[in-house]
Amino acid sequence: MFVYRHRVRYFETDKMGVAHHSSFVYWFENARIEFLRNLGLNYSDIEKSGFNLAVAEVNGRFLKPVFFDELIEVEVKVKKFGKAFAFFEYRVLKEDGEVAVKGYTKHITVNSELKKSPLPEWVMEELKNFME
Amino acid sequence: MFVYRHRVRYFETDKMGVAHHSSFVYWFENARIEFLRNLGLNYSDIEKSGFNLAVAEVNGRFLKPVFFDELIEVEVKVKKFGKAFAFFEYRVLKEDGEVAVKGYTKHITVNSELKKSPLPEWVMEELKNFME
Amino acid sequence: MFVYRHRVRYFETDKMGVAHHSSFVYWFENARIEFLRNLGLNYSDIEKSGFNLAVAEVNGRFLKPVFFDELIEVEVKVKKFGKAFAFFEYRVLKEDGEVAVKGYTKHITVNSELKKSPLPEWVMEELKNFME
Amino acid sequence: MFVYRHRVRYFETDKMGVAHHSSFVYWFENARIEFLRNLGLNYSDIEKSGFNLAVAEVNGRFLKPVFFDELIEVEVKVKKFGKAFAFFEYRVLKEDGEVAVKGYTKHITVNSELKKSPLPEWVMEELKNFME
Repeated sequence: MFVYRHRVRYFETDKMGVAHHSSFVYWFENARIEFLRNLGLNYSDIEKSGFNLAVAEVNGRFLKPVFFDELIEVEVKVKKFGKAFAFFEYRVLKEDGEVAVKGYTKHITVNSELKKSPLPEWVMEELKNFME
Repeated sequence: MFVYRHRVRYFETDKMGVAHHSSFVYWFENARIEFLRNLGLNYSDIEKSGFNLAVAEVNGRFLKPVFFDELIEVEVKVKKFGKAFAFFEYRVLKEDGEVAVKGYTKHITVNSELKKSPLPEWVMEELKNFME
Repeated sequence: MFVYRHRVRYFETDKMGVAHHSSFVYWFENARIEFLRNLGLNYSDIEKSGFNLAVAEVNGRFLKPVFFDELIEVEVKVKKFGKAFAFFEYRVLKEDGEVAVKGYTKHITVNSELKKSPLPEWVMEELKNFME
Repeated sequence: MFVYRHRVRYFETDKMGVAHHSSFVYWFENARIEFLRNLGLNYSDIEKSGFNLAVAEVNGRFLKPVFFDELIEVEVKVKKFGKAFAFFEYRVLKEDGEVAVKGYTKHITVNSELKKSPLPEWVMEELKNFME
């Protein structure tokens, strides 16, 4: 598991006075990319080698509102992965430790023409090492 | 079922050259609000009467990429609703008619302090009339 | 002058209860692209022919707040243009006709490697025709 | 002068492959709020005491494109301020130190009904102390 920290920004709020529910998509994306960096996988490098982790599904369940200026934590882990897909799980924790959002993203690997394409071997090795 | 039409905007694209996957959250929200307006339920009025349809869950499955400047259609319908919840389903159709995104949102009704609170009777009546 | 109409969206609001000040950048962009389409210049086609109207400067002055669900009008016109630049002016009108935002954008034409590059002749012709 | 550091996010990019020009508005906002925090002025507290630094004008000039994953620096300083206005200046530096964006924001202080209203004395004192 990896933890990505984020300060809730003013522009993320809406007229209900809370972070708009779309924000979790960005938090999950940032957490996922920082998690991969932490594994030694720079997402820029993955793209330059001709691959994208295209999002096939995204899900978020909202348990508590999140307010402006809170320091939140986004926990992210790989649930499953294969040569051509990856499945990440997330929890967003409020500053007081309560769970605000639970969710997941599913990805398929595509090439630069957006066609399904298995992950390169070096990325698979990194992910396998991390999963034990 | 109601259809909300949208032109995919430049700012919605990302470096993969497609609409970023976060965009569906906005498309669903806009479609939902226009659908309610079409039923005679102005979301502004619902809020002024002290209620919000807070989002409890959002889900999107991405089947096809959507490109800049496409005229897409977002189909939206009420799947279930009760005194304190609502469940909407959506399909996003590309300009060529192919399904790009399928998804749903679940909502609970909250008052202006964000506490769970049943929907006002007049909103229930409108929704019942619509559902037959 | 061209008028682009827009419904202010829920996600555009912030915790002050008004459209966040970043929104004008999107409104200007959408208005500009629809204005060009109205001249017969499809921005997609301009890009496919290897050019971008890169934004060199953007300015907005905020005179009145804009609220959720307002039907606003964005007036846009070309102030000046040349082989390698364009200068657009904008006014955003509230539903009641009051001016909410005044602003401008300046653009330089770049090629697909983001290097300065004069506009193709066919785009110049269209713009000249429009300016008389 | 205060420096706010930011990692350019995937969702900030557009189909030109660079950070969309709207991004600077968010970078300026975040930098401004962190700058005030650094002065001992929590923006949440300012709002709770009934005041907002409403944005009256925003300007950005784009000198260099900014790419995904760059670690940028946003320099922010107070240029002028008074009982009812503030004027901030910004520079965004790319990872290689080149200036990518120059800009400013002008603010007026409003109360929670969005009416012009002078800043509370305690905020003025903090700002004066900082400006020498």
